[in-house]
Amino acid sequence: MKVRLKGGGTAEMRAVWWEGGRIHMIDQRRLPGELKVCRISDVGTLCSSIRSMVVRGAPSIGAAAAYGMALGWASGSDPETTRDSLLSTRPTAHDLFYAVSRMGEVWSEGGDVVEASRMYVEDIIDRCVRIGRNGASLFRRGMRVLTHCNAGALATVDVGTALAPIRTAEKRALEPFVYVSETRPWFQGARLTAWELLNEGIGHAVIVDSASAYLMWRGEVDMVLVGADRVAANGDTANKIGTCAKALAARANDIPFYVAAPVSTFDPNISTGREMLIEERDPSEVERVGSEHITPEGTRCLNPAFDVTPHDLITGFITESGIFSPEEVGSIRPDDGRKG
Amino acid sequence: MKVRLKGGGTAEMRAVWWEGGRIHMIDQRRLPGELKVCRISDVGTLCSSIRSMVVRGAPSIGAAAAYGMALGWASGSDPETTRDSLLSTRPTAHDLFYAVSRMGEVWSEGGDVVEASRMYVEDIIDRCVRIGRNGASLFRRGMRVLTHCNAGALATVDVGTALAPIRTAEKRALEPFVYVSETRPWFQGARLTAWELLNEGIGHAVIVDSASAYLMWRGEVDMVLVGADRVAANGDTANKIGTCAKALAARANDIPFYVAAPVSTFDPNISTGREMLIEERDPSEVERVGSEHITPEGTRCLNPAFDVTPHDLITGFITESGIFSPEEVGSIRPDDGRKG
Repeated sequence: MKVRLKGGGTAEMRAVWWEGGRIHMIDQRRLPGELKVCRISDVGTLCSSIRSMVVRGAPSIGAAAAYGMALGWASGSDPETTRDSLLSTRPTAHDLFYAVSRMGEVWSEGGDVVEASRMYVEDIIDRCVRIGRNGASLFRRGMRVLTHCNAGALATVDVGTALAPIRTAEKRALEPFVYVSETRPWFQGARLTAWELLNEGIGHAVIVDSASAYLMWRGEVDMVLVGADRVAANGDTANKIGTCAKALAARANDIPFYVAAPVSTFDPNISTGREMLIEERDPSEVERVGSEHITPEGTRCLNPAFDVTPHDLITGFITESGIFSPEEVGSIRPDDGRKG
Repeated sequence: MKVRLKGGGTAEMRAVWWEGGRIHMIDQRRLPGELKVCRISDVGTLCSSIRSMVVRGAPSIGAAAAYGMALGWASGSDPETTRDSLLSTRPTAHDLFYAVSRMGEVWSEGGDVVEASRMYVEDIIDRCVRIGRNGASLFRRGMRVLTHCNAGALATVDVGTALAPIRTAEKRALEPFVYVSETRPWFQGARLTAWELLNEGIGHAVIVDSASAYLMWRGEVDMVLVGADRVAANGDTANKIGTCAKALAARANDIPFYVAAPVSTFDPNISTGREMLIEERDPSEVERVGSEHITPEGTRCLNPAFDVTPHDLITGFITESGIFSPEEVGSIRPDDGRKG
């Protein structure tokens, strides 16, 4: 992704990368105010960085964990200890488990874990590029797209999932315009997605989450495009809290609603969204914004982090293997998108 | 309404009242952190207090303006000057125009404007009490109600509109439970509605606006109950931004969606919601929370303050004259609820 440097000018940068035997990552907690790169050379520091959300987004966490295994391998650490430390950071991130176990296999087979982690990350990005290409086929010139949360380069090392077709459309001079819903309580839309779009020079405006339905009612949105955390076999989709409300408003206003995600997000073992476990996060995220305490002392807050969008509200799924209808989701297998 | 005092104990208080020849009002900008009462003895100070949202909510603004006319009258000011100052504060508040012109009539007819303003305010509260009684007839024991923004005592001098049936149900020992959506960008739900419910000892929990659809999908909401800023002849309803998304989620989950409002909110001169002018407020309300700047420098924000809920998503309208279906709205006249 393109980032703007403090002294002026721009640079190409990833959310997480390996350089000079160390892990580098953009501190996502400090964006958009400050572009700070953390350099990490031991697994302990990496684990606390994952835990405290220096890096976020399942694929970016997976990439950081793969590089973490590489760090352990290169420094002659014990593979079991390295693996267990990494797995203890974010218990619900599927990509983290996958990355750590893949690198663990390479390690136990005597392979080069640094090289394997690099390949693992290149594969993530390659899939995003293909999502971008497939999704851009849906774009007309000047299309106005509404997105939610951050399914961008910051979440997937580079390019993004929901932001990938938008980036590709921009490169094709189709001049997309993006409405970004701010995404309470963490403001991933207002802070991170807006920052990525600003850096790329893509036209956009931030709105409160509640304004999405109004813009659609006014006829100002041509497509809703979001990422996904997990897709059930029937197409029911778990994603950041607020996604379902956008799908309902899109349906009420005859606007297509697309989910962009790599095939690894599709879980054939879960038959419907009702079986998905939804993470409840700390109420303090709702109670406070920075140093501001919003709610009265003594009021309880609830903080569900995700919701489930029923499959019948979804127009299609944009993956690296093509675009699928909800009815076709059951046939997608996690390795469908593998190259070669 | 009941308020909790700093030293312990509680007191009955209104959002705005007349006492000792002065206007008193709770400074709503400082809630819930601090209960500060402003005492105002000149029209200039009152105008800047209305403008800066010390007092908010159309009926409370109307009450403050009626008292403002009383202040002008009692101090021997010019009626035209007093009226023009008050009308320049918040150009879109219907109640403000109504209150100022009613008091202007009394003034020009040589009546007692202080006494007239008191009667005007008692009438507002009386209507809210009747909304509470009518709405409470819909409540079963332990009902879980979701509300948005603040349609409470702070907005209507006392009792409230959407909160009126909830208060009445609580008094009848029906033990209602209220989900309060925080209401970005100003957090009227998280700050004001939660404060009112906490003071009354009514069970409640605050959620981000985006979590409403999820709670409904989970089967945790029995009714949605909101206020209204204006209702068109066909029942289309303008209310705080985010209301329409709740109505869509309620419909998708077969949950009744009620609007509570006095008959003065019904505008027979507007045939549908498409004719309503929606206020766009300052983008800085979206960009910042207190001292925190959320969005990147250079990103544009949009800040529509209201949205329109189509009439076919509304189960009924709770007014001081009874409960009406959307089809019956056309026959409601602004003075239907007048006593005697």
